[in-house]
Amino acid sequence: PVNADRIAEDIDALAGITEPDHPWTRRAFSPLFLEGRAYIEARMKAAGLETRIDAGGNLIGRRAGAKPGLGTIMVGSHSDTVPDGGRFDGIAGTISALEIARSLRDRGIELDHDLEIVDFLAEEVSIFGVSCIGSRGMTGQIPEAWLGRTSGDRTLSQGIAEVGGNPSVLLAQKRPDLAGFLELHIEQGPVLEAENKDIGIVTAIAGITRIEITVEGRADHAGTTPMDRRADALVAASQLVLDIRSRAADQAKTPGHFAATVGEFRIEPNAANVVPSKVVLLIDGRAEIRSDMEDFLAWIDNAVQKIAADHGVTIKPPLRVSDNMPTPGAPVLLETLERACDTVGAKHRRMASGAGHDTAWIAKVAPAAMIFVPCKEGRSHCAEEWAENDDIAMGAAVLFEAVRDMDKN
Amino acid sequence: PVNADRIAEDIDALAGITEPDHPWTRRAFSPLFLEGRAYIEARMKAAGLETRIDAGGNLIGRRAGAKPGLGTIMVGSHSDTVPDGGRFDGIAGTISALEIARSLRDRGIELDHDLEIVDFLAEEVSIFGVSCIGSRGMTGQIPEAWLGRTSGDRTLSQGIAEVGGNPSVLLAQKRPDLAGFLELHIEQGPVLEAENKDIGIVTAIAGITRIEITVEGRADHAGTTPMDRRADALVAASQLVLDIRSRAADQAKTPGHFAATVGEFRIEPNAANVVPSKVVLLIDGRAEIRSDMEDFLAWIDNAVQKIAADHGVTIKPPLRVSDNMPTPGAPVLLETLERACDTVGAKHRRMASGAGHDTAWIAKVAPAAMIFVPCKEGRSHCAEEWAENDDIAMGAAVLFEAVRDMDKN
Ligand SMILES: NC(=O)NCCC(=O)O
Ligand SMILES: NC(=O)NCCC(=O)O
Repeated sequence: PVNADRIAEDIDALAGITEPDHPWTRRAFSPLFLEGRAYIEARMKAAGLETRIDAGGNLIGRRAGAKPGLGTIMVGSHSDTVPDGGRFDGIAGTISALEIARSLRDRGIELDHDLEIVDFLAEEVSIFGVSCIGSRGMTGQIPEAWLGRTSGDRTLSQGIAEVGGNPSVLLAQKRPDLAGFLELHIEQGPVLEAENKDIGIVTAIAGITRIEITVEGRADHAGTTPMDRRADALVAASQLVLDIRSRAADQAKTPGHFAATVGEFRIEPNAANVVPSKVVLLIDGRAEIRSDMEDFLAWIDNAVQKIAADHGVTIKPPLRVSDNMPTPGAPVLLETLERACDTVGAKHRRMASGAGHDTAWIAKVAPAAMIFVPCKEGRSHCAEEWAENDDIAMGAAVLFEAVRDMDKN
Repeated sequence: PVNADRIAEDIDALAGITEPDHPWTRRAFSPLFLEGRAYIEARMKAAGLETRIDAGGNLIGRRAGAKPGLGTIMVGSHSDTVPDGGRFDGIAGTISALEIARSLRDRGIELDHDLEIVDFLAEEVSIFGVSCIGSRGMTGQIPEAWLGRTSGDRTLSQGIAEVGGNPSVLLAQKRPDLAGFLELHIEQGPVLEAENKDIGIVTAIAGITRIEITVEGRADHAGTTPMDRRADALVAASQLVLDIRSRAADQAKTPGHFAATVGEFRIEPNAANVVPSKVVLLIDGRAEIRSDMEDFLAWIDNAVQKIAADHGVTIKPPLRVSDNMPTPGAPVLLETLERACDTVGAKHRRMASGAGHDTAWIAKVAPAAMIFVPCKEGRSHCAEEWAENDDIAMGAAVLFEAVRDMDKN
């Protein structure tokens, strides 16, 4: 029920709007991002949608329904990227949503509900250091303190205003009209490809917990200080990295998605001939089942105490930088999506999302769910990220059927 | 035979010439460094020395001897510091050397040999990324390629010229007149303090070997990539850090000073939600006995292969960034220094230097040796670095006696 060529054309066109030396970079709040949005807006208009930027800086294309007051079905994703990556991450979902609107028009189908196609602002961690600005902003979930965050000489508040949002009314945003929300996204993991499935129906978006740990040792001369008189922060932190890895690997073998990664790691003074005095590292933990994360947090508290004692360093109590709960997909929509898969003949399975998504924020105020399409070798957030257009089109067809199904209720 | 108060006065005066917010910073090639040198030069002149800057940018104060042609006895150290540290490192030796000249003059003692008091240029790793520029420069040991190294828009060659050196004749420098060289330095380690000794007579300056290792894994999404499908460069590098530590600790238990430290450690992309794809780390190895270093180098080659296999990462063959041999102190001078200790009643022991020093470069062209004085808790290269003035004065007295002894031969 959708036109695969049109999807490919739009995704390719957006891929062309990139920093030439850093494909496929189109970071939120940048001139390139606005150029990408101008393209999407033009395509929305060509599809007969009425466009606007909401208070949260989201680009929305609207098609009124036959029965005013029944509420809005919203479908979409985001068009911003991380640095150096993301040809499909977000874009596949935004364009698939747009294709639904085009297909409905081509077929002369009128929905009872209003339909909105959305391109959320800044889903990725942006230059302001935070993510999912648009989906949080649309639903009044931006912490007030975030608005004052700066990047260069701009505040987030100014950044939102510059893309056409309205920061002054942001905290009061609500979308009581939302009848349901759907998002298509590339899996960003290897499971669908490995199992030769077309569609993943996302049972839950894992909670993301970020834990900062500061290891403090003593800066000593690397040439002269006897090996047995050192308090080497890097040695202690290395032990912690290995312990986290093995604990996470064990946890991952039990039911429910679990992962923990040390992705940020910075040593001081970082000088060739000085014993490292300090390491600050950030653990990124993901859990589909909340009690898994609570077990992990308790384990970390003990692990750092043991390492501090073993290595003669000081480790402050782990700092919980952020801690979000897992978000289940709306059960009724999971069933709708399964029926849609069967209608279009897509091989599907239920699975958790280890990655965070705008859907998790919309799910706080309305029934919401998402589907995954396969991507090559599970790679994402890199230039090599790839998804086959036929797989994306299959996903768009599933969304098309699901939207029609939702419209009946 | 020396005046402790004069030593204290000069060391305090130099401590006053520092970046106010970063005591005790006076980095080579900076305006503050030149200010420090102006102070030292004025004090050299006040001591009746004839001052000059040699081709290598070293500040030298000269006192002609009674018997021209007998050669030069040189004593000194350096006045530059690392960032944020070094109230005594180098300075104690430069000022002690100056005090010898003053004391000789006060007592009306004329030496047969010419005497030169030297403040070497840029002993510490400088803004040009290399160290011991002055002692190498004085003796024709600066690799030609170094002269083109840049810092900002200056080349090292320009930097040397700006402090008054002559880069155009640098590579041809020789000091065939040098009859002997002595340096006093703080220990920069905890041994003398722990053993309640006044003086360490340095049997050998450990060779310094720097080994760069690049661990390459795969950047994957930290949320979605199953724990058992990762090639995490940080996990592999952490194992390497622990293995190096335990190997170095074992090696240190055998005779001869040995240490190995990972002091520089950088991960990519260093993003919270990305599995680290790359770690570049630098090992700083020190060995008093060359075969210890050779054993260590062979061990490292094997260790990285095992880790690469265990963790599914790629590790290029370790890159030997620099590799200097251990430098023994001239045996005749070690005996001279021991006699001098006995003369002034200093409790002494022989020991290796784990740190590199200008003495190691001068030792390539002339008999050279050095002594250590205790420093607090072995701390150096930090604001807390401390040495008692009486300990420094005791060391200066030892040098005074040693110089008089050398002059007789
Ligand atoms: N989908 C996605 O990559 N979101 C970014 C947030 C995260 O999961 O790390
Ligand atoms: N003495 C000293 O700290 N020299 C710097 C070179 C080194 O040993 O790391």
